[in-house]
Amino acid sequence: MLIRLGYDIQFDVDVPVAMVAMLNVHPSRRHDLQEPDSVQVEPAVATSEFEDLFGNICTRFVAPVGRLRLSNSTVIEQSGEPDAINPDAAEVPVDELPSETLRFLLPSRFCEVDLLSNTAVELFGSMPRGWARVQAICAWVHEKVTFSYPQARPTRTALDVYTERVGVCRDFQHLAITFCRALNMPARYVTGYLGDIGVPPAASPMDFSAWFEVFLDGRWWTFDARHNTPRIGRVLIATGLDATDVAITTSFGRARLAHFTVATDEISLEPAADGTRM
Amino acid sequence: MLIRLGYDIQFDVDVPVAMVAMLNVHPSRRHDLQEPDSVQVEPAVATSEFEDLFGNICTRFVAPVGRLRLSNSTVIEQSGEPDAINPDAAEVPVDELPSETLRFLLPSRFCEVDLLSNTAVELFGSMPRGWARVQAICAWVHEKVTFSYPQARPTRTALDVYTERVGVCRDFQHLAITFCRALNMPARYVTGYLGDIGVPPAASPMDFSAWFEVFLDGRWWTFDARHNTPRIGRVLIATGLDATDVAITTSFGRARLAHFTVATDEISLEPAADGTRM
Amino acid sequence: MLIRLGYDIQFDVDVPVAMVAMLNVHPSRRHDLQEPDSVQVEPAVATSEFEDLFGNICTRFVAPVGRLRLSNSTVIEQSGEPDAINPDAAEVPVDELPSETLRFLLPSRFCEVDLLSNTAVELFGSMPRGWARVQAICAWVHEKVTFSYPQARPTRTALDVYTERVGVCRDFQHLAITFCRALNMPARYVTGYLGDIGVPPAASPMDFSAWFEVFLDGRWWTFDARHNTPRIGRVLIATGLDATDVAITTSFGRARLAHFTVATDEISLEPAADGTRM
Amino acid sequence: MLIRLGYDIQFDVDVPVAMVAMLNVHPSRRHDLQEPDSVQVEPAVATSEFEDLFGNICTRFVAPVGRLRLSNSTVIEQSGEPDAINPDAAEVPVDELPSETLRFLLPSRFCEVDLLSNTAVELFGSMPRGWARVQAICAWVHEKVTFSYPQARPTRTALDVYTERVGVCRDFQHLAITFCRALNMPARYVTGYLGDIGVPPAASPMDFSAWFEVFLDGRWWTFDARHNTPRIGRVLIATGLDATDVAITTSFGRARLAHFTVATDEISLEPAADGTRM
Repeated sequence: MLIRLGYDIQFDVDVPVAMVAMLNVHPSRRHDLQEPDSVQVEPAVATSEFEDLFGNICTRFVAPVGRLRLSNSTVIEQSGEPDAINPDAAEVPVDELPSETLRFLLPSRFCEVDLLSNTAVELFGSMPRGWARVQAICAWVHEKVTFSYPQARPTRTALDVYTERVGVCRDFQHLAITFCRALNMPARYVTGYLGDIGVPPAASPMDFSAWFEVFLDGRWWTFDARHNTPRIGRVLIATGLDATDVAITTSFGRARLAHFTVATDEISLEPAADGTRM
Repeated sequence: MLIRLGYDIQFDVDVPVAMVAMLNVHPSRRHDLQEPDSVQVEPAVATSEFEDLFGNICTRFVAPVGRLRLSNSTVIEQSGEPDAINPDAAEVPVDELPSETLRFLLPSRFCEVDLLSNTAVELFGSMPRGWARVQAICAWVHEKVTFSYPQARPTRTALDVYTERVGVCRDFQHLAITFCRALNMPARYVTGYLGDIGVPPAASPMDFSAWFEVFLDGRWWTFDARHNTPRIGRVLIATGLDATDVAITTSFGRARLAHFTVATDEISLEPAADGTRM
Repeated sequence: MLIRLGYDIQFDVDVPVAMVAMLNVHPSRRHDLQEPDSVQVEPAVATSEFEDLFGNICTRFVAPVGRLRLSNSTVIEQSGEPDAINPDAAEVPVDELPSETLRFLLPSRFCEVDLLSNTAVELFGSMPRGWARVQAICAWVHEKVTFSYPQARPTRTALDVYTERVGVCRDFQHLAITFCRALNMPARYVTGYLGDIGVPPAASPMDFSAWFEVFLDGRWWTFDARHNTPRIGRVLIATGLDATDVAITTSFGRARLAHFTVATDEISLEPAADGTRM
Repeated sequence: MLIRLGYDIQFDVDVPVAMVAMLNVHPSRRHDLQEPDSVQVEPAVATSEFEDLFGNICTRFVAPVGRLRLSNSTVIEQSGEPDAINPDAAEVPVDELPSETLRFLLPSRFCEVDLLSNTAVELFGSMPRGWARVQAICAWVHEKVTFSYPQARPTRTALDVYTERVGVCRDFQHLAITFCRALNMPARYVTGYLGDIGVPPAASPMDFSAWFEVFLDGRWWTFDARHNTPRIGRVLIATGLDATDVAITTSFGRARLAHFTVATDEISLEPAADGTRM
C-alpha cells in the first residue's frame, strides 16, 4: 500500500521567532519513503536538522516577520496490515529490560506515574501480566474517557484526564501510558500520521494523531487507547516520554497559527489505460 | 584540594527487587578521581553499568531478600575554588543554542514551565538578560522559599513550591529551573556531593545535594537557589531534566530505607613527621 | 428604568432526577419587582422553595422523564445608575469586620486563598489599602486573563486561572476574590443578570453573569474583574463563597441541557400615540 | 461518665493580630457541661462570641504583642457508649433530604467532589446503599491511606489524599466525605475532643480530632475513616463543610504557635474515704 502524506501549516509572526518542527517521518521509516521528505519552509530561510535525545528528526529555523508556511507532500510504502496483535507477548521483568527502556518507567510532565500508581495497581494489578493487561488498560481508558475536541487543553495531565474523563487523543494515551509505567511496563508516547484507511471517514478535519508503544517480549508494540482497535496506516513521526517531547512545532516566542491541514490518503493503484500502474 | 567522598545506604528487602543506582561520580569528573569509584553492593550480586540518556552512569542489579548495602569511599581532586561567577555571561538567543540544549527549555515532571511562564515574565521579564537575570531568579527563590526538611515530599512540583513556599534543596532548584526555562534559558537539574567546606557545618546530617546549571555564553554554569552563594567542593554525580531523572536510587518494587549516610570531607594535607604529605 | 428579565432553560431527562434551581431574583431586590417572579416548571411538578445558608432563594423539584422546561419573565425597576464608585471606601480592619463577613476571608472550592496568599501580597501588598487596592486587583486580572468561552471548564480554580490566564466571567471573579481574601478583605461571589445596557451588544448570546462583592467601609460593593468598568443594570440573583454555592441549576443525577436562553432588556418607555407610556 | 476537657494553646505575637477561636463545646452539647466552658484569654483582652453559618460558637479578639494564651478546663457528662452503629440506616433520596443538608452534597475547598465523583462511583457505586456503603468507604480509606504526622500539610485536599495515600485524621475524613457526597449522601466535617478512652493510649501527644457525619435515615451519624472503629467519648466542637470552616484557631496575620496541649480524660469516680464521691 502506498500512502500520500502531507501537511500545510502556517503561522503569522510579528517578531522573528526561533522554531523547531518535528515534521519528518521517523528515521525507522525512512527506507519506506518513495519521495523526498523534507520540510518546505516559505519564505526560504536557513534551516538545520538535528536528532533529539530520542532519535527523532527536528528542523530548526528562525521564522521571519509575516506569514510562515511549513509544508510537504511525500509518499510512503506501508504494509497495509493493521496494528499487530500478540496476546502472548509477555511482560519483561524489570531486571531483564534493556537499559534504554528504563526511563520509560518513570514520570514525565504529563504522566504523573507517582500520583497514579496506587490507582493503577487497584484497577489492573490482579490481571494477567503482559499483553492482556495493556489491552485492559486501553479498554478502560477508552470506555471511561469521552473524546471532545472543544475540551482540549494543552496543560491537561494524566491525572487531569483521570479526574475529568474528557480529552483528545493525546490525553487518552497519557493516561494509558501512566498506568503502564506504574505497572512496570515501559511505555512511550508517539506522534504520527493516521488516516481514515479501512474505517469510515471522521467528521472532523484530519490532524496528526497520537498513540503509544509498550515494551513487551523484547520489542515495542503499538497501542491506542483513543481508538482501542487495530488500525491500518500509522506512520511514525516521533517518540518521546510524552507530548512535551514530540510537539509538531515549538515556537520560542509568539507565532499565531493561521492555517493547518494534514492529509494521509491511500493512493489508488488502478491500472492505467496503457496497462501501467499510476 | 582532595575530597573524600563516601556513602553507606542500606535497604531492607522482602521480595527481590530490581534497582538502579546513580552513585558514580559523573564521567566529566572521572579524570579527577584518585581512588576507584565503583558501587559496592552487599551481598555481592551481579551488577551492570549503563549510561542513561543524559550521559550519567547508572548501576543496575536485583536486590535479594534481606539487608542490602550500597557503599563506597573514594577521593577526588578538586580545585578548591568556589563556583565560578561571571556577571558578563550573556544569554544565548534560542536560534544560536546548541541543539542538545533545547530540551532543557521545555517542561518536565517537576518543572511546569507551561504553568509558570507568565509569572516568570512578570517577575523577571524586564531585567537585564543573562547572568544577572539568573542571579535574580536565584535570589528570589532563596528569599521567598523557606527550607524545611520535615516538609519534604517527593511529589512537590515547581508550582507547588511557588504556592507553598517551603521545600528542600530539590524544590528550590525546580522552581528556579522552571523560571529560567520560561525565559528561554536552558536549565538542568544536578545531583552531587556538597560538603560543608568553607562554611560552618550544617546542623542536619549530610545528604546528597541538588543544584542546577544554566546554559549561558556557550557553556553550562552552576547555580544554587538553595544556598544562593558560591560554594566550594561540589562534585557532580548526574544531570537531567529534573529530580525524576537523577534519583540516587530507584526501586521497581518495595525496598525500605534502613540506613543512610553520606560523607564529603576535605582531606587535611598536613605535613607528616617525616616531611612527606599524607 | 425598567428591565425585563427572563430565561428559558430546558433539559432532557432519562431517569427522574432531583434538581435545585437558583433562578429567583435575590430577596434584597424583591421590592423592585413589578411582576411575579416564580420559576415556571413544565411539566407541572411539585416544587418547594427554601432559603440557603447565604439567604438565596432556591427551588427544589424532581424532574420527570422527558423534556423539562424552567422559564419565567418578570420586570424589575432599576436605578439606571452604573455601579457605585467610591475611591474613599476604606478597608475595614479584621477585628472591626462584622462576624458574618469573616467566612468570606477564607478559602473555598474555587478560591484557594491559602495557595495564592503570597502572590497576592507580592502583587498588591504595597498598594494603598481599600478601594484602590481592590481596583488594582480587578485591573490586573482583567489585563492578564483572556476571556474565552471555548476554554470554559467547570473545574477551573483561581490557581488554574492564575497559571492558565484564560477563562470566562466566573474565572475572572474567582481569581480576584482570592486575592481580596488573601489581603483580608471579605469577598463574595455573585450571580445575576447583566444585560448589554449602555454598552454595545455582545457578539455571544446572553448568559447569566458573575461578578463579586467586597466588604469595604461597612458595606458590600460591586466589582467585576471581567468587565472592569462600571455597568448599568445588574440584577442580583444569589451570593456565596464561590460558583459552587450559586449554580443556576444543580442536578443530582444526569440531565442534559437542551436549550438555554436568558434575556435582560431595558423596556423602552416611549410615549404611545395617545400620550400614555407603553 | 464524666470527661474532663482542657487545652492550653499559646502563641507568640509580634504585631497585634485579629484571631478567631473555635474552642467551645458545640451548642448541641451545652446541656451536658458540668462546669463553665469559656475560653480564657491571657493577657485579658476584650473578646466577643458569635455563631457562624453552621451554628458553631466562635470567639473573636485581638491578640496583643507578646505571649498569648488560650486555655480552659471543663467537665462534660458523656454516655460512655461507643459511636452508634445502625446497619439498617437507609440512604435518603435527594428529593427527600432536608433542604439544610443539600449544601453538604457539593464540593468544598478540601473536598473536590467534582474531581472524584467517577472514582466514587467506580469504587462504591454497585454496593448496597445506606450504612453499608458509608462503612465500605470508611474501610477503604482506612486501609488505603497511611497515617503519618510528619507528612501532615495544611493544603492537602481529598484528591491529594487519594493520590498520595498518606495523611492525618483530617485527610482521612476529607477523602471519605468526598466519596459520600459524590454518591449523594450529605457528609460534613467535625472537629472535637477524642481521648484514648477504652483504647490503649496513643504514642503521640493528644490533639483535637476530626471525624465526619453522614445524613442517613433522617439524622446525622458519626463516622471516622481514621480509626474505622466505634469510639467512646467524642465531644463535638464544630461542624462544617471541611477543615476550612472549623479551624481551632485562625489568625488574620502572623502568630507563632509556641505551646499546644489538649487533654481529654475520663474522671475516675471512685468512692472517697468518707463515702462521698470525688
